[in-house]
Amino acid sequence: MAEARATLGLDLHLEPAGPGLRRGLTDALREAVRGGRLAPGTRLPSSRALAADLGIARNTVADAYADLVAEGWLTARQGSGTRVADRAVPPPPGPRPGSRHREPARPAHNLVPGTPDLASFPRGAWLRAARRALAAAPNDALGYGDPRGRVELRTALAGYLARVRGVRTDPDRIVVVNGFAQALKLLAEVLHARGTRTLAVESYGLDTHWDIARRAGLATVPLPHDGLGARTERLADAPAVLLNPSHQFPLGGALRRERRVAAVDWARRTGGLILEDDYDGEFRYDRQPVGALQDLDPDRVVYLGTASKSLAPGLRLGWMVLPPSLLPEVLDHGGARSVGVLDQLTLAEFLTSGAYDRHVRSARLRYRRRRDTLVAAVAERAPRVRVRGIAAGLHAVLELPEGTEASVVGAAAWQRLAVTGLSRYRHPDAAAEPLDGLVVGFGTPPDHAWAGALDALCRVLP
Amino acid sequence: MAEARATLGLDLHLEPAGPGLRRGLTDALREAVRGGRLAPGTRLPSSRALAADLGIARNTVADAYADLVAEGWLTARQGSGTRVADRAVPPPPGPRPGSRHREPARPAHNLVPGTPDLASFPRGAWLRAARRALAAAPNDALGYGDPRGRVELRTALAGYLARVRGVRTDPDRIVVVNGFAQALKLLAEVLHARGTRTLAVESYGLDTHWDIARRAGLATVPLPHDGLGARTERLADAPAVLLNPSHQFPLGGALRRERRVAAVDWARRTGGLILEDDYDGEFRYDRQPVGALQDLDPDRVVYLGTASKSLAPGLRLGWMVLPPSLLPEVLDHGGARSVGVLDQLTLAEFLTSGAYDRHVRSARLRYRRRRDTLVAAVAERAPRVRVRGIAAGLHAVLELPEGTEASVVGAAAWQRLAVTGLSRYRHPDAAAEPLDGLVVGFGTPPDHAWAGALDALCRVLP
Repeated sequence: MAEARATLGLDLHLEPAGPGLRRGLTDALREAVRGGRLAPGTRLPSSRALAADLGIARNTVADAYADLVAEGWLTARQGSGTRVADRAVPPPPGPRPGSRHREPARPAHNLVPGTPDLASFPRGAWLRAARRALAAAPNDALGYGDPRGRVELRTALAGYLARVRGVRTDPDRIVVVNGFAQALKLLAEVLHARGTRTLAVESYGLDTHWDIARRAGLATVPLPHDGLGARTERLADAPAVLLNPSHQFPLGGALRRERRVAAVDWARRTGGLILEDDYDGEFRYDRQPVGALQDLDPDRVVYLGTASKSLAPGLRLGWMVLPPSLLPEVLDHGGARSVGVLDQLTLAEFLTSGAYDRHVRSARLRYRRRRDTLVAAVAERAPRVRVRGIAAGLHAVLELPEGTEASVVGAAAWQRLAVTGLSRYRHPDAAAEPLDGLVVGFGTPPDHAWAGALDALCRVLP
Repeated sequence: MAEARATLGLDLHLEPAGPGLRRGLTDALREAVRGGRLAPGTRLPSSRALAADLGIARNTVADAYADLVAEGWLTARQGSGTRVADRAVPPPPGPRPGSRHREPARPAHNLVPGTPDLASFPRGAWLRAARRALAAAPNDALGYGDPRGRVELRTALAGYLARVRGVRTDPDRIVVVNGFAQALKLLAEVLHARGTRTLAVESYGLDTHWDIARRAGLATVPLPHDGLGARTERLADAPAVLLNPSHQFPLGGALRRERRVAAVDWARRTGGLILEDDYDGEFRYDRQPVGALQDLDPDRVVYLGTASKSLAPGLRLGWMVLPPSLLPEVLDHGGARSVGVLDQLTLAEFLTSGAYDRHVRSARLRYRRRRDTLVAAVAERAPRVRVRGIAAGLHAVLELPEGTEASVVGAAAWQRLAVTGLSRYRHPDAAAEPLDGLVVGFGTPPDHAWAGALDALCRVLP
């Protein structure tokens, strides 16, 4: 029953619609009945039990049940509890074309990792840079142009990446892309065309990335993993590996020096290729700088960066720094002219004018404060929970007592707190034992919503 | 020898570098010798013969020869003519990484089709729309958002395409893409995943499109073709076809009503899919409107449009209108979130404010005037040449006397006039006899350069 409830909670989490917890719960239950997931006659848990499990007030559940009894979806009988009504289920209205792709309704609190604080996007500075960039652009810039992207941006990036991330490159080897997903898709296609059929990945990561590789014909094989990160000394069979050396997603650590060296040694020995996903390298909070792995061997490492965390995902701006040998194949596979020149020129202006540095500095301060309040609040209100992976980035991992992750995630869903469990990121073929944890994106909420989100989080922690 | 010279001209066309014809010719010849394309001892045509063939002054050729003799690349001996010097060829300097992808140097006159007049891009109006759009955008717009693209743009496009192109759609079925190439790549991947292995195409088209299909695993099979266009009544084996119904590229005609009906009948009968490439549907100069083929059956036709001709290719903005059945697969193959939201919101604002209509109207007038001067100039100065495909779009086809295309293209190259021959666009497996012609992009030059480009063109016509 606990399992059924957790599943119910997770399913409902997909559609946490409507303003207010009671209405959201009512809507979600109605949908579950209407859609047939809760069959006629199914007995629901008591309002007391469900409320306790999900960390919400019993009255909220009781009210939702009462609403649905009144509507005829549920029946409540003395001695028999609350059940799904045994009535003809009306056919669901036909979905509008494409409706399965609509954006999900917004949760009350959003701590899903992956998005920076969008309210702090520097709109004014960006528009000013756009105006300067467009005024300075030659007419030719508006044409098809260089397949790698505008030279102004590639030049600005080469300087910036060398200074801030220790990347060794010149503008010729940079290709501007519309995000990490496009870059990974292209690289997977190039590897497939070279005969590669597998890609080593870390045990924890994003299934969207594994899907991209799979669709390009590469099976993903998880590397063994321990407390120090991916065991790169076990790289052997796969001809290529995808790594987060600076800040593992989601676990949060940096790949240690000896494991970096092991990865590069492997690549040199076997002719292997390392794809370095440096998605949030700008945000480090401790004194120890962690540079790009690419620095160890620019001919064996593809460096992949993005403005999605430092500025905003909506810009769709990313970049690849390629070994020269890979460049022609990447361009042949369509890795060309995928980003609007106005955004490219604006980012170039943003980088060279110093506006980018200013924005990153202020964002770093803001995120660091949030991280500090997160650590302090968890230490005070949930002392059984350990916070990991906090030296960098926009997310932290909250280690949970064994076996509690599903119920905590379910409870969060009922509170309309969007947060993801660590198991969501575990590769299905990973050998290591599953870890119980929450991945908390502390960059996501706007400033005014951070305290409320943190409070909602602490309420669901064991 | 005529063949050798034409080939030489075409090769040199690839690198028409430097300011001025003499220097460009000298550089190009030097490169041909240095790179080994002209072997030591090869006898060059006399300066008089080459100049006549290429439509340039004899002195220019003689001066270029003299320069190269002085430099030691050529030898000139009484009675033996001018030959490539019999000397040790110095090794070419190693190419810089990626240098094969650098943009080619600019020709003096550019009539290559495919690019609109970039000097007339409405920079001020675009920036104003960007400012309004960014001011009105919610913070959420800067996130990952709807995989199909911003709803503001899809809504604006649905209205615009219905009004101007007769496309039947709602915003849910539109996916914003970064250009036709991305859309075709995605659709080819979806078709391949469905088991499709061939794509019917027109006999004349762009090899870059055929390459995209091939890389996705689809062999392109040219449809038979006659004076009325693609013989869609011969569609049979291929499960999908790529067509330019409104304005064939490069031939310039519109697909007749009965052939449109035949295509849709085929699609309904066989479950086939029609990909409609409507790249320049805004630019029609005759009274007869030619609407989108998609109108005949929105469940069998994918409509593909772009801002690359109506505004500028550098924006990287295009759109697909999909049959509902195709939408999930297209999004699964990565057809999502590929365009920056700022450009999307700006185009939406541009469309809804009427700025887009105003820009297209003024561009249509400008291009129509150019078309008229092109037709008049050719009629006067090259009466043997017929101009075709002039009812619409940004290019025309100049029909040449049989067997003259290569020499005309070569002559143009020597004049540093960039223009392409019709054979460049003929599918290698096309059954029809090759046609001799020039494809003239009259949208490409800025206004001040149009008269000079037209004059250069007339000078090389037979």
